Amino acid sequence: MALLERHDTGAVAHLRMSAPERLNALSDEMLAALKAQIDALGEDRTIRAVVISGEGKAFCAGHDLKQMQQGRQTEDGGKAYFAALFARCTEVMTGLQRLPQPVIAQVHGIATAAGCQLVASCDLAVAAEGTRFGVNGVNIGLFCSTPMVALTRNIPRKQAFEMLSTGRFVEAEEARQMGLINRVVPGAQLADATAELAETVAGKLGAAVKIGKEAFYAQAQMGIDEAYAHAGQVMVENMLWRDTEEGIAAFLEKRSPDWTQ
Amino acid sequence: MALLERHDTGAVAHLRMSAPERLNALSDEMLAALKAQIDALGEDRTIRAVVISGEGKAFCAGHDLKQMQQGRQTEDGGKAYFAALFARCTEVMTGLQRLPQPVIAQVHGIATAAGCQLVASCDLAVAAEGTRFGVNGVNIGLFCSTPMVALTRNIPRKQAFEMLSTGRFVEAEEARQMGLINRVVPGAQLADATAELAETVAGKLGAAVKIGKEAFYAQAQMGIDEAYAHAGQVMVENMLWRDTEEGIAAFLEKRSPDWTQ
Amino acid sequence: MALLERHDTGAVAHLRMSAPERLNALSDEMLAALKAQIDALGEDRTIRAVVISGEGKAFCAGHDLKQMQQGRQTEDGGKAYFAALFARCTEVMTGLQRLPQPVIAQVHGIATAAGCQLVASCDLAVAAEGTRFGVNGVNIGLFCSTPMVALTRNIPRKQAFEMLSTGRFVEAEEARQMGLINRVVPGAQLADATAELAETVAGKLGAAVKIGKEAFYAQAQMGIDEAYAHAGQVMVENMLWRDTEEGIAAFLEKRSPDWTQ
Repeated sequence: MALLERHDTGAVAHLRMSAPERLNALSDEMLAALKAQIDALGEDRTIRAVVISGEGKAFCAGHDLKQMQQGRQTEDGGKAYFAALFARCTEVMTGLQRLPQPVIAQVHGIATAAGCQLVASCDLAVAAEGTRFGVNGVNIGLFCSTPMVALTRNIPRKQAFEMLSTGRFVEAEEARQMGLINRVVPGAQLADATAELAETVAGKLGAAVKIGKEAFYAQAQMGIDEAYAHAGQVMVENMLWRDTEEGIAAFLEKRSPDWTQ
Repeated sequence: MALLERHDTGAVAHLRMSAPERLNALSDEMLAALKAQIDALGEDRTIRAVVISGEGKAFCAGHDLKQMQQGRQTEDGGKAYFAALFARCTEVMTGLQRLPQPVIAQVHGIATAAGCQLVASCDLAVAAEGTRFGVNGVNIGLFCSTPMVALTRNIPRKQAFEMLSTGRFVEAEEARQMGLINRVVPGAQLADATAELAETVAGKLGAAVKIGKEAFYAQAQMGIDEAYAHAGQVMVENMLWRDTEEGIAAFLEKRSPDWTQ
Repeated sequence: MALLERHDTGAVAHLRMSAPERLNALSDEMLAALKAQIDALGEDRTIRAVVISGEGKAFCAGHDLKQMQQGRQTEDGGKAYFAALFARCTEVMTGLQRLPQPVIAQVHGIATAAGCQLVASCDLAVAAEGTRFGVNGVNIGLFCSTPMVALTRNIPRKQAFEMLSTGRFVEAEEARQMGLINRVVPGAQLADATAELAETVAGKLGAAVKIGKEAFYAQAQMGIDEAYAHAGQVMVENMLWRDTEEGIAAFLEKRSPDWTQ
């Protein structure tokens, strides 16, 4: 069985982390597998939405601590290895946001440390009731500094600081109220609810979602005038597509659009 | 009847979009009317708060799609027209934030696409129970990229992405919890509740509100040290006004201030 | 009795503002006392968490208005005095964030104007039921421009604007929902609940909390790529500490860590 299984349902790609005995830890191998799928999806024009889930009891428990400890067996005490590891992890996390397709985390069990970062790095997230989220590295002396980058771009400052400095777990409903996830559903409905959200997104005009997602993260880092200048250009480009002209015409004529893609 | 009616009640200006048959769409004409009023209000020292509402079933349903489709009848397929249209729309949206007076959206029915952006661009917003908010352009192949600039500066990232990528409508109470609006009231009380909020704001020292509103948006785009340097200068200027000296004196003496403006 | 009492309980420093007759106003003297303690705590390697509370009916009612009015008795009408005052106040507020230890506001009664800013400037905050928060300077003609810098980095934009432009007070539970504070507890449990939170934070590896807190505020001001580059370096440094190696080893071996600090 592959470490990261992929199966596609129509225009939705499902990535399933499958190292349940290690709580789907983000080992070197898991990060490489995620990176490979992200690279492939970036080129895949048939896929319009991506779902990431985890096999077994947990969504993802963060980095592979055993492997990290083994990484210390070098002359520099692991320094170069750790630097490369966090760089690769960052590539995966930001790679999700650079994908043209929206990415949805389907979360259950626990999502901790870099596993919580993975949730925060997805565009959308659905969680099962009872899921617990934490950036609890501080409990073992390793502050979750990289997960913090994603987390603080999702939830308010004081709640983020509390999670990071106390290691406290928050349950799904609290995570939703904070803004870390979009929806909480009973565990038995998690896969269906996530698939439904993915299908909704996949049913939109892919090019519009792609250009919009790209602009979403780009403008978030700009001052308001620059953001509007950028978004305005995106709107003009979007308006000039044949499919958008057809989409608007269909709406005005109260019929379904006949889209080419 | 004018496309945009204005009537003033004391120091409060009420702007009412009056194209109910088009759900108060932001046509070229409506944008021009809004721009003209914004320009006028910017010079009007008697007005201390502005309320924007809509006639008929909806607050505002966004751009005028029929007019936009007609804009394609040029050699460049509408490119220059669309660029100018979004630039004018942006001028209105950011113009509301540049006004010296606080601007309050009085929202009912629906506020969609650029209509939702209008709500997000106001300083404050009160909505009737049952009001529905959406940035649903994605449904017709046009991602709400410019509305997104305002929306993402109001609500958390994941909720914003969901609204933009799924076109999902959110009801008033959910919009309030997200931070898009300040209050939800029964429809029958909407006008009164909004007027009361406007009166409250209008009852403050206008110069203080003006200098504060300006600093509010300016400092939001700065790093914390620069923000404090700027806000500190604003505080000093504010302190040196005769009316502020009087306001503080009156407070210490437990009497009403005798303000000159 | 000192204006600002300090007593330490283990690794937790408790600062108690003790000018109850002036609602713990941030007078020149109080700001100087806070600054002195912040400077001392910055060098104190035995303290791992700081609690700030207030004696009497209020946590803190902001600047000392009587003293400010007296500051006008100079040739420049107080201009230089006010500039220096706000600069000193800013030094205290940002000084709390520059401290290596997490700082927790223990809030009761009222926290208004610069007192509300003090809450917003702490890393964490616990409040008693019934506590009221306000940035109500606008009521006396002095917009809370410097408190706004801290407030807007804690809560959503529209709520912040409402508090600033109307002077409206929000109660503890609403403040929690907005993100201004972490927890609300019955008044009788306030000291214990805050102490418990402080003990939790103080029980972590101090060096990890220090490096993490520093990165928390640094990365918040960066674009995402720069933020990850910075946080990645912090993670590598953190990983290379002997105590972190021991913390991870202890976790993997299911035992308590034997930390040197």
